[in-house]
Amino acid sequence: MSLSAKKRSGKQTVVLANPPVIISEATVVGPLEGQGPLADYYDLCTEDSYFGENTWEKAERKYLLTSLKMALEKANLTPDDIHYLLAGDLLNQIISANFSARELQIPFFGLYGACSTMYESLSLGAMLLDGAFADYILTATSSHYSTAEKQFRFPTEQGIQKPLTSQRTVTGAAALVLAAAGNGPRITHITTGKVIDMGIKDSNDMGSAMAPAAVDTLVAHFQDTGRSPDYYDLIVTGDLAAVGKELTIILAGRQGLDLTKNYTDCGLLVYDASQNVYAGGSGCACSGVVTAGYLLKEMKQGRYKKILGIGTGALLSPLTAQQGDSIPCIAHAVAIEY
Amino acid sequence: MSLSAKKRSGKQTVVLANPPVIISEATVVGPLEGQGPLADYYDLCTEDSYFGENTWEKAERKYLLTSLKMALEKANLTPDDIHYLLAGDLLNQIISANFSARELQIPFFGLYGACSTMYESLSLGAMLLDGAFADYILTATSSHYSTAEKQFRFPTEQGIQKPLTSQRTVTGAAALVLAAAGNGPRITHITTGKVIDMGIKDSNDMGSAMAPAAVDTLVAHFQDTGRSPDYYDLIVTGDLAAVGKELTIILAGRQGLDLTKNYTDCGLLVYDASQNVYAGGSGCACSGVVTAGYLLKEMKQGRYKKILGIGTGALLSPLTAQQGDSIPCIAHAVAIEY
Repeated sequence: MSLSAKKRSGKQTVVLANPPVIISEATVVGPLEGQGPLADYYDLCTEDSYFGENTWEKAERKYLLTSLKMALEKANLTPDDIHYLLAGDLLNQIISANFSARELQIPFFGLYGACSTMYESLSLGAMLLDGAFADYILTATSSHYSTAEKQFRFPTEQGIQKPLTSQRTVTGAAALVLAAAGNGPRITHITTGKVIDMGIKDSNDMGSAMAPAAVDTLVAHFQDTGRSPDYYDLIVTGDLAAVGKELTIILAGRQGLDLTKNYTDCGLLVYDASQNVYAGGSGCACSGVVTAGYLLKEMKQGRYKKILGIGTGALLSPLTAQQGDSIPCIAHAVAIEY
Repeated sequence: MSLSAKKRSGKQTVVLANPPVIISEATVVGPLEGQGPLADYYDLCTEDSYFGENTWEKAERKYLLTSLKMALEKANLTPDDIHYLLAGDLLNQIISANFSARELQIPFFGLYGACSTMYESLSLGAMLLDGAFADYILTATSSHYSTAEKQFRFPTEQGIQKPLTSQRTVTGAAALVLAAAGNGPRITHITTGKVIDMGIKDSNDMGSAMAPAAVDTLVAHFQDTGRSPDYYDLIVTGDLAAVGKELTIILAGRQGLDLTKNYTDCGLLVYDASQNVYAGGSGCACSGVVTAGYLLKEMKQGRYKKILGIGTGALLSPLTAQQGDSIPCIAHAVAIEY
């Protein structure tokens, strides 16, 4: 049987025939993020991370639901207009996404890609639109420092001292409305990652764990498309932060990719070094709020025309760590052009 | 802006222009399932539920990976031929799927739809094939009685007495290879569910929690397609078991849908009443192994020509339960015709 899907280019990449458009985006963040360098780019910065709720998990859900409603409102659409909601988050059973989907009553596909979820949802959403399965799709993700710490590491009340390789989970949420047509930045190429695991077991060094996955996807993207890094105005990974970014530049260099000129990471953009966040930011909302809040707005202002975003995810699990396993990682690249 | 995605029919359904083909399927199950009425339909029945591993979670991973490799082998394909792996499971951080993806090195989208995951993966996989984004896609899911009990309910060692509404999580895994062309049963229609929550809080009565979601999706499917239940030779829900099935018949009847003639549930097919499984089976593998092991084989034998499968998922979370929330549920319908 000889097949050949006509929208594919190379082993891991698809080229969208009618590139879907990001017609609106919304971001809601926590207090530390609201004191950070990108504060002016977010739609709402909350004063405390409970966001009026009595648990952190309910707060995270509220961040997500608020961003979803804002993105709809900005697009002048209602939940009835949206054909699919694609969302996920870091919490067990992706409860932030599930309960938000319950409120909105939009046909829902739940995703789990850890901190790569924003780019996983953009990848699938863009393909469903380009394939003529939908007119409008909502994509979204959230994370919360306090819900992530208690689930993946230690209760925050314990005051555990952290190494400098550790990262701060971004509190907040981002939602984007994608459309089959319209005005705005377009998703033109999608390179979907494989699970890469180089044996790192330290849950306080996610940047080192994820860097090889980011490089694997970057190499695939440039091979598949025939492009080189300088095609893009900006190449930006999701949450590798200081340690992972340096490692990515080194590993990519060994593969013949020069990332020294136009490459940065959302985990370095989201906080200022003075904010005491160790190596930088992480979490689903890290690439979410930086992409939706900052990068897309700068694109619309004309600063960037071509961005390659690479959502990075450490598929970290406390249970597999207890059973001696290392941390599998993944990275999904999405080319956004305007 | 006026758009209209050309493959949509009604509010929640898509009609596939070139219906993707299920070219191979594989199932691996645990000992209780291997003593059940469908034993002869499975590819491998293991003698104990550790499957040679030293933890239940590693065993679940082995069930999943074994089914994936078998499905590939039956299709005479290698991981290199597969453009996407779409998989998920019940465990936190979908570890069974993540670690299987690590072994196979296929570009991977992780999903979480609880026990609806098999049908979520078939839905997305079929659309990616029909949209010309891939030639071959692997879809898969797994569950394990012992991993699910300890994560969602009580340690099995505690010997908690269960009510008759409770269900037995199926131990096993199912994997299917979907192709853009070829011979085999075809996926023709996809109706994607919304999250429905009627306020049930009892984690030992998932059937009652999920039935309204199943009915909501069934009503949407028949409205969107203009079909009636008698169009199908068989309508089969994923894991509503005895309590949920009866409730589904009643609730569907109130909406004018007669399910008294050709409707059953995978949770009733997978075990015999003598097996002491309370209301019946549940878990991601319930709809997985019954669909892949039994229904598709009976289709190929000519017993069924048109099946409507509805994967049902209780998006149960111990944490949200502790915080007073009820159980959100979802159901995804996929029409398979041969």
